[in-house]
Amino acid sequence: MSYNNFYMVDVKIQDLKTKKNDYIGKTVQVSGWVKNCRESKTTTFLEINDGSSFKPVQIVIEKETNAKINEETLSRAMHLGVAVTVSGVVVTAFNNPNNIEINAEVINIVGDCAADYPIQKKKTSLEFLRTIPHLRVRTNTFMAVMRVRNALSMAIHNFFQKRGYFYIHTPLITGGDAEGAGESFQVVAPDFKGHFFGAPASLTVSGQLEAEEAAMALGRVYTFGPTFRAENSNTTRHAAEFWMVEAEAAFTNIDGIIDVVRDMIKFIIRDVLATCPDEMAFFENFYEKGLINKLQQVADNDFVRIDYIEAIEILQKSGKTFNYPVTWGVDLQTEHERYLTDEYFKSPVFVVNYPRDVKAFYMKQNEDGKTVAATDLLVPGVGEIIGGSEREADYDKLVAAMQARNMNIDNYHSYLDLRKFGTVPHSGYGLGFERMLMYMTGITNIRDTQLHPRAVGELR
Amino acid sequence: MSYNNFYMVDVKIQDLKTKKNDYIGKTVQVSGWVKNCRESKTTTFLEINDGSSFKPVQIVIEKETNAKINEETLSRAMHLGVAVTVSGVVVTAFNNPNNIEINAEVINIVGDCAADYPIQKKKTSLEFLRTIPHLRVRTNTFMAVMRVRNALSMAIHNFFQKRGYFYIHTPLITGGDAEGAGESFQVVAPDFKGHFFGAPASLTVSGQLEAEEAAMALGRVYTFGPTFRAENSNTTRHAAEFWMVEAEAAFTNIDGIIDVVRDMIKFIIRDVLATCPDEMAFFENFYEKGLINKLQQVADNDFVRIDYIEAIEILQKSGKTFNYPVTWGVDLQTEHERYLTDEYFKSPVFVVNYPRDVKAFYMKQNEDGKTVAATDLLVPGVGEIIGGSEREADYDKLVAAMQARNMNIDNYHSYLDLRKFGTVPHSGYGLGFERMLMYMTGITNIRDTQLHPRAVGELR
Repeated sequence: MSYNNFYMVDVKIQDLKTKKNDYIGKTVQVSGWVKNCRESKTTTFLEINDGSSFKPVQIVIEKETNAKINEETLSRAMHLGVAVTVSGVVVTAFNNPNNIEINAEVINIVGDCAADYPIQKKKTSLEFLRTIPHLRVRTNTFMAVMRVRNALSMAIHNFFQKRGYFYIHTPLITGGDAEGAGESFQVVAPDFKGHFFGAPASLTVSGQLEAEEAAMALGRVYTFGPTFRAENSNTTRHAAEFWMVEAEAAFTNIDGIIDVVRDMIKFIIRDVLATCPDEMAFFENFYEKGLINKLQQVADNDFVRIDYIEAIEILQKSGKTFNYPVTWGVDLQTEHERYLTDEYFKSPVFVVNYPRDVKAFYMKQNEDGKTVAATDLLVPGVGEIIGGSEREADYDKLVAAMQARNMNIDNYHSYLDLRKFGTVPHSGYGLGFERMLMYMTGITNIRDTQLHPRAVGELR
Repeated sequence: MSYNNFYMVDVKIQDLKTKKNDYIGKTVQVSGWVKNCRESKTTTFLEINDGSSFKPVQIVIEKETNAKINEETLSRAMHLGVAVTVSGVVVTAFNNPNNIEINAEVINIVGDCAADYPIQKKKTSLEFLRTIPHLRVRTNTFMAVMRVRNALSMAIHNFFQKRGYFYIHTPLITGGDAEGAGESFQVVAPDFKGHFFGAPASLTVSGQLEAEEAAMALGRVYTFGPTFRAENSNTTRHAAEFWMVEAEAAFTNIDGIIDVVRDMIKFIIRDVLATCPDEMAFFENFYEKGLINKLQQVADNDFVRIDYIEAIEILQKSGKTFNYPVTWGVDLQTEHERYLTDEYFKSPVFVVNYPRDVKAFYMKQNEDGKTVAATDLLVPGVGEIIGGSEREADYDKLVAAMQARNMNIDNYHSYLDLRKFGTVPHSGYGLGFERMLMYMTGITNIRDTQLHPRAVGELR
């Protein structure tokens, strides 16, 4: 069988399943990789998947009665990872009237699978799978992760598009740095000589400043793209390369942006639960008991909103002994955040109006002279998942905040220009995409949410 | 007026226009930046835009009869770039029954615009605007580009999602290189010492190899993300950082992928023409006469498909004198491609089956021993816009092609594993996103399709 005829006649397994009433009783051709195989005296069962469906389709081969399938083909097909093309009749599955299977008439081997194939039926560890990123994507876990990753990406796009936000692409190679130096990878020419761009260049840690520029023209914008951190730390929640969503809205204050964050979280959770039921059931069964209920609760219930000062009071009255003592002025640690979400409120919590000194220079200074209009969204089981703020729109206040931090104002002329030419109240936030994916799947190591994770010492 | 009340009551200008029958006769509040202003003895006209709509809305201020709007406010508002909030009654526009305008009752200045604002009514050059990327996005040209950029992005996503392709994120920091060394930026730790990742790291020039890995599990995948080239060249069509779409489909041969390319091009053109009529009319008027008709022709008509050898024969018989002589074995130059598309066929043309030696190692070797199953899509006015191929699925042939090119096979074990463990016919292609955007807008310099273009010596 030549390669050139396959795609003309293959039916995708997902189509077979979703339109099964159109196919039952008909002869079809499907292609896929063998995910499972077993045999009895008279019958061989192959489960194959072409990637279109999370779950494979079962191929039933009556050995004795099928003259067209010879023993050699059958023995080659009985290995995980082999690629086959099968023709046969679609029937209702023997033990599940809602499912289908295929009674095979012809089987062709498309590609054999060498005996040292490392993906075998016995359970392998996530640690081992990290050593073979090019093959681990074929396992159930990574098929599920990548399918939810796709669904979550589109849920984010659809949320913002429906709201009239424009998708923008902020530059990855930058001369500046939104959060301070030291964490940025340097970008150098292939010969390592001179400055390719005429000045030192680094990989962006945030597209926020450029998103603010765009919001001053397009009104409402969002990014969804890669971001980098050169942190020399090896944790389960940090990656050197990850994707981030950053939204920015003109004519919007802190209250307005909190509403957007809440609506987005609820929208993307509902959307993924609706579009990925099989994958979410898999994560519930194998990665986090109670996952679906946890997410459904977040989608269905109001979020708590408290001032930072209320959070401090609750923590001080808790009777808990924290590793980091709680007084007004400290930044909240994960142990504090988890107490608020997991024990006290049992709900997502927006904490608003943080002390100025624990937050960034660009946040809007409140009239009390001590706090800024910043918010973190804390979720049960995790802690902070989104950080946002109203931005300081006043030129003089912004300059003062930069001076108080000993920043070099010469690097921020463009940013200051936004406050000089038609400044408006505006607000925005950032969501670490892989953090959200971990929250939604129960996957506990960020390395298992990406195709090829990047971290210090890791470049597979 | 405090910032904190704006977002509660502002109506977006786009909503006013699309639901104008709901608003006519009602009092609304809108905010935006002044895009145009003029006055007669009795009346002042401000055109303002909040970014939600490509076209601004006209604010009509009857000076004599409106006691609430004092002269000082009016004089501050009469400058391009000023941010204002306006309350007034929505009425049918005086000179266009399909449009609306607002009879102002109250105007508040939200943010003044300093006198040295560089965006003025007189026509400025694109060259000058490149020196102020943070402000040029406020001009009509860049508003239109960014709106079409958003629409084209979503058209691409929607095309692939409808076809069952999964959106994947291939790594940007890589140890390898799909097209050979020398063009890749190096990524180094902040202190420039040692290898952060334990090995030399560079910025990707293509996600294809990783997309092939994912296609061997998920079947059909696409990327839409940034890509980098460290080319020390300064042309209107090359950028150091740009976005690319790469699609990869398992169980698909060269014929199958040509169909996908054609369907995608037609889909995204139709979609953008339908969703961005005002912006496309703007480009037609100011950037490329005949633009819309050109695109409509591509959307409506069949594409030509010819073999490379036929292309050579047509070029040889053309009677034209080309700068690069035409013989079998040469790669096609833009002058050749343009002759085929602009003069001979007057149509987009797929050229298929190129000589092996002008194409990449991973392309499927045809049985003639001389050509590979590669295709370029050429479009009128541009030349090549998409390159694709069936991939070599045979382990031994792939190794031989790599050896013939003196490649270091040790760097490609993962890629070769895909041919060892269940290899299948598969095909894919790449589209330079900004090139497509230039084709669709008539913008002739890639620097004017991005927020902050990056090229040698350019890092604004």
